Amino acid sequence: MTTAHPLRAGTAHQSRSVAGHLAAVTALLAPLAAESRAEVLPLRAALGRALVHDIVAPVSLPPFANSQMDGYAVRSADLHDGGTDLRVAPPVPAGSRPPALLTGTAAPIMTGAMLPDGADAVVPIERAVPDSFPAAGSEASVTLPAVPAGTFVRPAGSDIVAGGRALAARTHLGPAQLGLLAALGRADVEVFKAVTVLLVTTGDEVVEPGRELPDGKIYDANGTLLEAAMAEAGIDVRRTGISTDEPGELRKLLRATSTEADLIVTTGGVSKGAYEVVRQAMEDQPVDFLHVAMQPGGPQGIGTFDGVPFLGFPGNPVSCLVSFEMFLRPALSALLGAPAPRAPLRARLGHGLTSPERKHQVRRGNLQPDGTVRLEGGEGSHLVHALAGSNALVHVPEGVTELAAGDEVEVWML
Amino acid sequence: MTTAHPLRAGTAHQSRSVAGHLAAVTALLAPLAAESRAEVLPLRAALGRALVHDIVAPVSLPPFANSQMDGYAVRSADLHDGGTDLRVAPPVPAGSRPPALLTGTAAPIMTGAMLPDGADAVVPIERAVPDSFPAAGSEASVTLPAVPAGTFVRPAGSDIVAGGRALAARTHLGPAQLGLLAALGRADVEVFKAVTVLLVTTGDEVVEPGRELPDGKIYDANGTLLEAAMAEAGIDVRRTGISTDEPGELRKLLRATSTEADLIVTTGGVSKGAYEVVRQAMEDQPVDFLHVAMQPGGPQGIGTFDGVPFLGFPGNPVSCLVSFEMFLRPALSALLGAPAPRAPLRARLGHGLTSPERKHQVRRGNLQPDGTVRLEGGEGSHLVHALAGSNALVHVPEGVTELAAGDEVEVWML
Repeated sequence: MTTAHPLRAGTAHQSRSVAGHLAAVTALLAPLAAESRAEVLPLRAALGRALVHDIVAPVSLPPFANSQMDGYAVRSADLHDGGTDLRVAPPVPAGSRPPALLTGTAAPIMTGAMLPDGADAVVPIERAVPDSFPAAGSEASVTLPAVPAGTFVRPAGSDIVAGGRALAARTHLGPAQLGLLAALGRADVEVFKAVTVLLVTTGDEVVEPGRELPDGKIYDANGTLLEAAMAEAGIDVRRTGISTDEPGELRKLLRATSTEADLIVTTGGVSKGAYEVVRQAMEDQPVDFLHVAMQPGGPQGIGTFDGVPFLGFPGNPVSCLVSFEMFLRPALSALLGAPAPRAPLRARLGHGLTSPERKHQVRRGNLQPDGTVRLEGGEGSHLVHALAGSNALVHVPEGVTELAAGDEVEVWML
Repeated sequence: MTTAHPLRAGTAHQSRSVAGHLAAVTALLAPLAAESRAEVLPLRAALGRALVHDIVAPVSLPPFANSQMDGYAVRSADLHDGGTDLRVAPPVPAGSRPPALLTGTAAPIMTGAMLPDGADAVVPIERAVPDSFPAAGSEASVTLPAVPAGTFVRPAGSDIVAGGRALAARTHLGPAQLGLLAALGRADVEVFKAVTVLLVTTGDEVVEPGRELPDGKIYDANGTLLEAAMAEAGIDVRRTGISTDEPGELRKLLRATSTEADLIVTTGGVSKGAYEVVRQAMEDQPVDFLHVAMQPGGPQGIGTFDGVPFLGFPGNPVSCLVSFEMFLRPALSALLGAPAPRAPLRARLGHGLTSPERKHQVRRGNLQPDGTVRLEGGEGSHLVHALAGSNALVHVPEGVTELAAGDEVEVWML
């Protein structure tokens, strides 16, 4: 660091909006959404992935009109005010097509069983006299109140009609979406492959957790933090050891390990200091180093290394996580439908804050049950204990310099 | 179903509040929180688990006072209004302890490097004249403005002090918590073992997805839906095939497969109909079948089967998921710290609704970016397509019969 490094001085003062950088990251990763990157998985393995194509319902749900209650299937026209005696027909068997219901009869039916032809309503057993079913094979009658047609009937197709679009392409597959695919009879589904990221942390001053900590060094939190955040988002993460601050070594490490990666992500070495290993290692590559109008996480690198898409995140843990949450995660959500996008929630600030005018500030906070959000820690991007005590990111858009307690902000639950 | 089944008539009309049933489920599963169920995992494998014990910080974070900027480390007392010329000292090396800073000198320092003894502030390079560092080994001086002590210094222990509690027992380990453990030098961590659930869906009328669908039958959505919901919550799920409605067969199936399970969960066969295979299979076991004041998901079974904790969920998909979200998931969160509890959010209803007075109603909805929630589908517990189009559960507490558009409700993001 003993000489001034006028590294790409032309780009060093470039500044870009958060939206502009997200668009650039999304463009870089657009090839990941190619249909050639699809694979067919059994439903249980598709959790957290997203659909390549629309899913059209091959059957209606429910497939047939069925009873919503335990009771008697009836022809509503048979029933009159004041109660009507009907002969008890043989019970409707579960799981098969019952015979048609004769006029003047009522058939015991259980929840979910197919309504017999002719029947158009169900009287719950609680409203019948007597209010329990007669013994098998016995001749019996039952007194039932009048009910409108359709009472306690789930019509065929009332949830979805065969031929209708059940799920759209790029829908994220959580439990409910997989449950719907199962209800439609699907045992497997075509989804986008998981994205493989090679994650490389850098710095002569960082040490692997579990080792001894020499004077002046810190433990590497970035690797664990980002690996976990990426894994939670469905990314297949591969890690190297920590790279030194020697650019040639980092290049060698990347060349040895990046062949199968869809994306390289590094941490550290991207700002305007003298030792900036990632900048230096990328000197011959089409990579831009720029400043995004965001706090923390301003310094960012983006481009390709030997043709592999590359993102360079800054070196502090909170900056790393914010970079992931603001750029990589939403780009993948937009392109592939997975991970599921963070829901933009509204909350009231528990207390006031200030923010630099020309930056989108991302604070860490705790969303309280009363709907207010309490900030955790200060602005410092090294505050990983404060981050660990937070459950949400709090957004202060560019142009906003001051907010008071009670003002509404957008928050993302982590 | 041809005879009335007065199964446990004494308990059939038992009704219990949601809170009462949650307490019962939590008590049933309390042995899972025994410290004997701990295991030590490397950090990457501990994602989604929870801590058995408090974690005390073995080091302070930051471990030493360091620079927040690239610039010059200074003794603030050396600097005076109007600018002061200082001799440039040798640069502070990253990752080791620098020599003390002599009076009247300023040492080039990069972000994160240890502040030399004697230095108490950092002047950013942008505020220096000249605003770039001199070449290595050259004699040079720099003109710096006056700054207060502490400027751009991250004091040792400003995030957490050694000996302080970094994380509490039963904290859920997400990316930020694992990142903190790494920052503290931990390579592994003691967590509760994953809970193993044996999941059994029942019913003569349900067919495995992927097979042909005979007349009157439906595909089994419950197995896929619950397996995915449980897997997302960190549960180790084992599934059997679908059980028939023959109680002896279900008993045999459970005896053959439940030996290693922490919990058996069945779906279907727990209400007051005539064919209720789960009720019948549990006749000789200490199991209660009761009604919880909740819609959907009222009928519930709870007890033990051959000594293994048992929960019987109702047979409709939405009822299954609501049962899981209202009882099993929060019980595990309370006992083990994992999965992370659902955050109770507040939202305004997009339109009005009605709800039975004596029941806690759980509706499905979509939380909109403007903070309102739109209900999806009706109350019907078979509406799995509507469920798949929802991102939230909407709570209408017992005693509330009507809500208007704009009224505030509690929602849980799914």
